[in-house]
Amino acid sequence: MATLNRQFRLAARPVGLPQRSDWTFTESPVVPPAEGEVLVRVLYVSLDPAMRGWMNDAKSYLPPVALGEVMRAGGVGRVEQSRNARFAIGDYVVGMFGVQEYALGNGRGMHRVDPALAPLPTYLGALGMPGMTAYFGLLDVGKPEPGNTVVVSGAAGAVGSLVGQIAKVKRCRAIGIAGGPAKCAYLVDELGFDGAIDYRNERVHKRLADLCPDGIDVYFDNVGGDILDAALARLAMHARVVICGAISQYNSTTGVRGPANYLSLLVNRASMTGMLVFDYADRYPEGMAAMGAWLAAGRVKAREDVVGGLDNFPEALLMLFKGTNEGKLVLEVARP
Amino acid sequence: MATLNRQFRLAARPVGLPQRSDWTFTESPVVPPAEGEVLVRVLYVSLDPAMRGWMNDAKSYLPPVALGEVMRAGGVGRVEQSRNARFAIGDYVVGMFGVQEYALGNGRGMHRVDPALAPLPTYLGALGMPGMTAYFGLLDVGKPEPGNTVVVSGAAGAVGSLVGQIAKVKRCRAIGIAGGPAKCAYLVDELGFDGAIDYRNERVHKRLADLCPDGIDVYFDNVGGDILDAALARLAMHARVVICGAISQYNSTTGVRGPANYLSLLVNRASMTGMLVFDYADRYPEGMAAMGAWLAAGRVKAREDVVGGLDNFPEALLMLFKGTNEGKLVLEVARP
Repeated sequence: MATLNRQFRLAARPVGLPQRSDWTFTESPVVPPAEGEVLVRVLYVSLDPAMRGWMNDAKSYLPPVALGEVMRAGGVGRVEQSRNARFAIGDYVVGMFGVQEYALGNGRGMHRVDPALAPLPTYLGALGMPGMTAYFGLLDVGKPEPGNTVVVSGAAGAVGSLVGQIAKVKRCRAIGIAGGPAKCAYLVDELGFDGAIDYRNERVHKRLADLCPDGIDVYFDNVGGDILDAALARLAMHARVVICGAISQYNSTTGVRGPANYLSLLVNRASMTGMLVFDYADRYPEGMAAMGAWLAAGRVKAREDVVGGLDNFPEALLMLFKGTNEGKLVLEVARP
Repeated sequence: MATLNRQFRLAARPVGLPQRSDWTFTESPVVPPAEGEVLVRVLYVSLDPAMRGWMNDAKSYLPPVALGEVMRAGGVGRVEQSRNARFAIGDYVVGMFGVQEYALGNGRGMHRVDPALAPLPTYLGALGMPGMTAYFGLLDVGKPEPGNTVVVSGAAGAVGSLVGQIAKVKRCRAIGIAGGPAKCAYLVDELGFDGAIDYRNERVHKRLADLCPDGIDVYFDNVGGDILDAALARLAMHARVVICGAISQYNSTTGVRGPANYLSLLVNRASMTGMLVFDYADRYPEGMAAMGAWLAAGRVKAREDVVGGLDNFPEALLMLFKGTNEGKLVLEVARP
């Protein structure tokens, strides 16, 4: 009897938060690899805010996921069968495997990883796209100088927690904005942030003024909305705003709200620049080496929030938008 | 009998468009210069959109004009009396003289100009702050490359008309957005723009798509609001958006509207940067030399809209916000 591959396919374009009814959960026989192909058993699926954008039928940096298509997602897996000389059975690999149990690929965009160097989920976090996003977004776009005040929103998330820690490595002051006292305590007590603002219980404007008396030199934005506006109101001269995401806006049913305080860019001769990690693909080795060394030295801590069971995918994804995940959110599809 | 100096003073902080009742028109005797000072007879007062911001009681790049204070404005004048070795009677000078007939200064921020090289009002336009704003804003912030598509809003205004012409000098395609068919015809027929969009009678989104099939490489924004959003929707990869002003928002009584399409910066890895001409003060000689040469060679045309009579100041200022001026708006206070 053929092995079955279970898959989440996009069934409808969500309006607001994605519902379970926006997905179909399908089964189909696993197809053996053709010449040049590799069959991967998916172990962990990466859950990322960007996935929400891929569900919309809108021009963006990647084409939308088509209706009926397996949902696009990064993942870590183990090579089960290989007809590609670059990969052997038993290799652990990362790639865009989708929300499914088995993925067939030609090896393009697939990379071997070493499970002895770091736990597999870390290759979806600090040593994966979030790590590279934090590294290149902060250093190349934000251009922090020692002594600068770096503020990051979504600070307890996969990218944000790394941005603040890299800022500390670079001898900046790091202030994080996150939801709830537990996350804020974690940022300061565990990750070494200089301060944290609980946007659910504190007045962000006021707290930014208190914590950033000389203004914000680098603001790394993952959330958009009110928090972006509050940060714009506190920019230092020649500040750099890195636009990495806007999770507060992704499920809006009334359209994206633009930053009303954008004229602070003019007043402060500041810049706001969008970044996308894929542009740095040829420099991932540099980013991986730095992140690997900082992790090994304990200068940067990685945390993953691993949720079990492929069938929990629709609900697990919503954790990102509710902010209930702690660290990089990963769905465990099978035990390594 | 003492000569009288007539002055417009800020009487109230305007709500929306400034009214005549927001000003007081005062007279006071002209005070002779003390040691080190210069008395200037103001000939032309520069009317600029930025003046609207200076009337608000808000932190900005310059302190607000205080209630009761003579309204801040640039101008051209002639030295009447001098106790400063740098200036002689009869010298023509530019400086921040205010909306009045006579200005007393210590010479700081005052520069001699040559009326034989260009008409005096041109020193408030192409050879003044608007010229320097266009030159440094486009070239240093916008960084256009030959062949790039440069779009500018407020294109028939003092800054915009120069931005498009400098773009042409730099071998770019120049597209202007302006209000009304006459201004659009002027941009294309007189100033050599490659295309013009009449935002009052045309659909800006659609026309930008037609005129910029490969997207916008440099967008120079003077207006904000809907037009900024339309331009953001058409950015090319790695586009540069220069935020120079937001005239559509300055008189808003409901707060500034932020650009809802700002996530186009992320999709296109683009940047949006605020610029203020004062930052380039030490490079004005470079900008003046370039603009002077282009004007002399006929590669750039300057146009001033000269309105007569100091007492017309409140109504003349409104021409900027109604868009009824053609070229750099200047108030003639006295004949040279």
